[in-house]
Amino acid sequence: MTPTPQRKNRGDRKSLKLQDIAKLVGGELIGDPGLVVTGVAGIKEAQENEVTFLSNSKYLPFLDQTRAAAVITSRDIHSSQKPLIRTQNPSRAFTQVVDFFASSGKSAKAKGVHRTAVIEKGVKLGKGVAVGPHAVIEEGVEIGDGGSIGTQVYIGRNTRIGRNATIYPQVSIREETLIGDNVILHSGVVIGSDGFGYETVGDEHVKIPQIGSVVIEDDVEIGANTCVDRGRFQKTWIKKGSKIDNLVQIAHNVVVGENALIVSQAGISGSTQLGKNVVIAGQAGLVGHITLGDRVVVGARSGVTKSAPDNSVLLGEPARPISEQKRILAATARLPELFKEILDLKKKSPVPLKENG
Amino acid sequence: MTPTPQRKNRGDRKSLKLQDIAKLVGGELIGDPGLVVTGVAGIKEAQENEVTFLSNSKYLPFLDQTRAAAVITSRDIHSSQKPLIRTQNPSRAFTQVVDFFASSGKSAKAKGVHRTAVIEKGVKLGKGVAVGPHAVIEEGVEIGDGGSIGTQVYIGRNTRIGRNATIYPQVSIREETLIGDNVILHSGVVIGSDGFGYETVGDEHVKIPQIGSVVIEDDVEIGANTCVDRGRFQKTWIKKGSKIDNLVQIAHNVVVGENALIVSQAGISGSTQLGKNVVIAGQAGLVGHITLGDRVVVGARSGVTKSAPDNSVLLGEPARPISEQKRILAATARLPELFKEILDLKKKSPVPLKENG
Amino acid sequence: MTPTPQRKNRGDRKSLKLQDIAKLVGGELIGDPGLVVTGVAGIKEAQENEVTFLSNSKYLPFLDQTRAAAVITSRDIHSSQKPLIRTQNPSRAFTQVVDFFASSGKSAKAKGVHRTAVIEKGVKLGKGVAVGPHAVIEEGVEIGDGGSIGTQVYIGRNTRIGRNATIYPQVSIREETLIGDNVILHSGVVIGSDGFGYETVGDEHVKIPQIGSVVIEDDVEIGANTCVDRGRFQKTWIKKGSKIDNLVQIAHNVVVGENALIVSQAGISGSTQLGKNVVIAGQAGLVGHITLGDRVVVGARSGVTKSAPDNSVLLGEPARPISEQKRILAATARLPELFKEILDLKKKSPVPLKENG
Repeated sequence: MTPTPQRKNRGDRKSLKLQDIAKLVGGELIGDPGLVVTGVAGIKEAQENEVTFLSNSKYLPFLDQTRAAAVITSRDIHSSQKPLIRTQNPSRAFTQVVDFFASSGKSAKAKGVHRTAVIEKGVKLGKGVAVGPHAVIEEGVEIGDGGSIGTQVYIGRNTRIGRNATIYPQVSIREETLIGDNVILHSGVVIGSDGFGYETVGDEHVKIPQIGSVVIEDDVEIGANTCVDRGRFQKTWIKKGSKIDNLVQIAHNVVVGENALIVSQAGISGSTQLGKNVVIAGQAGLVGHITLGDRVVVGARSGVTKSAPDNSVLLGEPARPISEQKRILAATARLPELFKEILDLKKKSPVPLKENG
Repeated sequence: MTPTPQRKNRGDRKSLKLQDIAKLVGGELIGDPGLVVTGVAGIKEAQENEVTFLSNSKYLPFLDQTRAAAVITSRDIHSSQKPLIRTQNPSRAFTQVVDFFASSGKSAKAKGVHRTAVIEKGVKLGKGVAVGPHAVIEEGVEIGDGGSIGTQVYIGRNTRIGRNATIYPQVSIREETLIGDNVILHSGVVIGSDGFGYETVGDEHVKIPQIGSVVIEDDVEIGANTCVDRGRFQKTWIKKGSKIDNLVQIAHNVVVGENALIVSQAGISGSTQLGKNVVIAGQAGLVGHITLGDRVVVGARSGVTKSAPDNSVLLGEPARPISEQKRILAATARLPELFKEILDLKKKSPVPLKENG
Repeated sequence: MTPTPQRKNRGDRKSLKLQDIAKLVGGELIGDPGLVVTGVAGIKEAQENEVTFLSNSKYLPFLDQTRAAAVITSRDIHSSQKPLIRTQNPSRAFTQVVDFFASSGKSAKAKGVHRTAVIEKGVKLGKGVAVGPHAVIEEGVEIGDGGSIGTQVYIGRNTRIGRNATIYPQVSIREETLIGDNVILHSGVVIGSDGFGYETVGDEHVKIPQIGSVVIEDDVEIGANTCVDRGRFQKTWIKKGSKIDNLVQIAHNVVVGENALIVSQAGISGSTQLGKNVVIAGQAGLVGHITLGDRVVVGARSGVTKSAPDNSVLLGEPARPISEQKRILAATARLPELFKEILDLKKKSPVPLKENG
């Protein structure tokens, strides 16, 4: 087999002329109105046929470096080597263009309720809800308008899902889960599995019933094969706007604050709470029963063992404030050299350094 | 969406009066017979409306601190600020109360054999076995009395499952697996996938057939999206009473001894063997072909590279006895300060410490 | 339940006499022609009833140590305590014997197209393709001759799969994926889920459309519950002959070169590229946007933060060349002892070592 480029054959690829974008966002175009773009991305990531945006002056140096075809800017920017679309609010304009292109990514969405789907009694489906083949929706479930329930999805008893959900194939959502609007769950996600809770009696581990629930608020996205356990008694809670990558573990009773970014293979142990806008990088782990404040950043592969206040940036094993950890790492790297110096020191010292040992 | 408390609307929540508990466990009640509890938990975890127990005198200080509504104790305890239920055997009494409340957590269990389930020829289903929608059970499978086979579960050819199994939706169990009584498998679990075995011939990796099996003994629970590979030739073996959390990797030919606790995202490489009552904390990893003795504890995020005798407590990367590792961590944390001192030392030393390099 | 050995009852176990093997590979037998073997393995792993091979002279010391029943060798080897099968090309002979035994492992393969499978319009199935119960194949999908599409598998719109695929139960392959010949995907694998890509506007994370694809070349095998995200715009690309274990994360736009071995729970971040014959050991993590050269080896649980040239062997956190990292680890282990010596040194030094601080 010779893999061939996929993109060429696609008839469904969206495109926009710069004049269309200017119109869409109510902006002023400086540049070729007929230039065509086929996508949208951040200023450092954008490709030659994509449009990007500049909202923050710290990215100003990227304006002439970006590969993007054109840049959406504020009215403060007057000229550039690139075509510009000048608007009152470049961030809002950017999200409008993203929305336009994003609709081309919904191809995995089901249409209508498939004849092989099992919909139990008392299920309420909103306007335009689609349910894929072999999906199973148990009694008492409610799904809001515009929801797309993919192939082979399982939704347990009494779960409620808001509007415009995108539930990809083979997601499992256990009973009594509460999910907000515009939530995206990728294939293999498990929501509401039992937390890991036992009381050891002698040698035997007695299972403590896990009869809480999971609450997932609006605009949350959860990546493939990630697990969110149900609360033991209360709820496990993912707040509005948080984005979770693939293969992440969220244990029982965890609270993830608004707008978190949790990268692949990270794990958060039971009852730990995150503030707003927290970032947990890949393969990091947090012990249970701690609290991270707002805007805390945990570096990749760090092991967090203690609570940390707002705005902390943590790194290492155990995790420490990043400046401290960097000093330790630098010193550790020089250790072999240090041992050599110590040896020299011992040889030359006028007094014996160690008599026994 | 405003997430609302889930618990209020539940009509199916179980409750017990203290007088009912005393009767259930054959104990003597000291306190309000009409006080209602709605759950059960360990003494440190219990909430205001739960009952807990005290079996071990080391938890005695918690007796007056626990938030629990009441405490099941031995007859040695005579009074407390809390209501007491005094019994011969508080551990056994506790498990009786857990059993009562646990049945409320079985809501995801199927009832009867759903019309869309595919049951191949030669399948033997015990008394009261339920099979959910779109489940597939291949030829020669045997399932013991009381088993609950969830929605969209796959059970491969000739697999045998004991009594009272709870197999949650979307579990995949490959052919020839042997599973004991009272086993719980959570959504997304994969049992019996091929082990990772190749022989490299030139640049090419030739797959070595993985034709062993998996044996899972009684009372084992395995968390969401965890993988247990089949043996290459022999069996991969999870012994009685072991509990495994979400997203754990158990490679081919591994033996997990009785009553292990293996926490989320830990990984055990091929042919490694664990003794009885071993604890592997979250995100830890064990290399292949080693043996950990009985009651070994491996700390979170540790990397175990060598065998360890009974009762070892290991921590770190590479993992070492915990006291040793703690000394190393403490010393490492002081390294930047040490380097400063060394600098001072060099400046002030009456003889030159290093002449070149 | 008493778990009983599984192997005894199997009627389907393959076996070969040594004379049959000699005939199969066109070799000369020295030893008992009637001796029966039931499997095949590498020289260090082989059991008493298996045949192995010796192609590389560095394994010569193992010739008399192996537990194998017999050894396939080159014609340079003339005698051994073990029965020998002497051939022109022992590697090729070995793969022939593996092929013979491997067919006994295909029991989970479906036969025919099951009546409950959903095959949408415009799907092209090659000769002898089998599709298991409740599998769903969307419009425009093409599957080459001899493919086995397991129970409850999902294959999205326009995906193309080459010949002799083995797709185990409950795999999810999203739309527009391109898969080569002889590919094996284990249960729970997710191919083509959206990459983790957002642009943060104020506090909000705006999703960047992930509209690239995944290309998986010939002879790739991917383990249970592993995730391969689709490219943001271009493709995520797993090249020919690569083998990936369970629970691995492959992020968007990653390129895995030919014949990689990526062990369980490793993670590769977005846009990182691997050369040929790279080995990534278990639980290792690679940051995004770096390049590892050909034949790079990353040790278990290492955190790779920088690009590395061909033939690098990396270890540690952050990962360094292994010899350097081993010196650092050795020095770190001696730190507590060093601190004691420093203390002695300070006590005995003729001048004060530190005046303040």
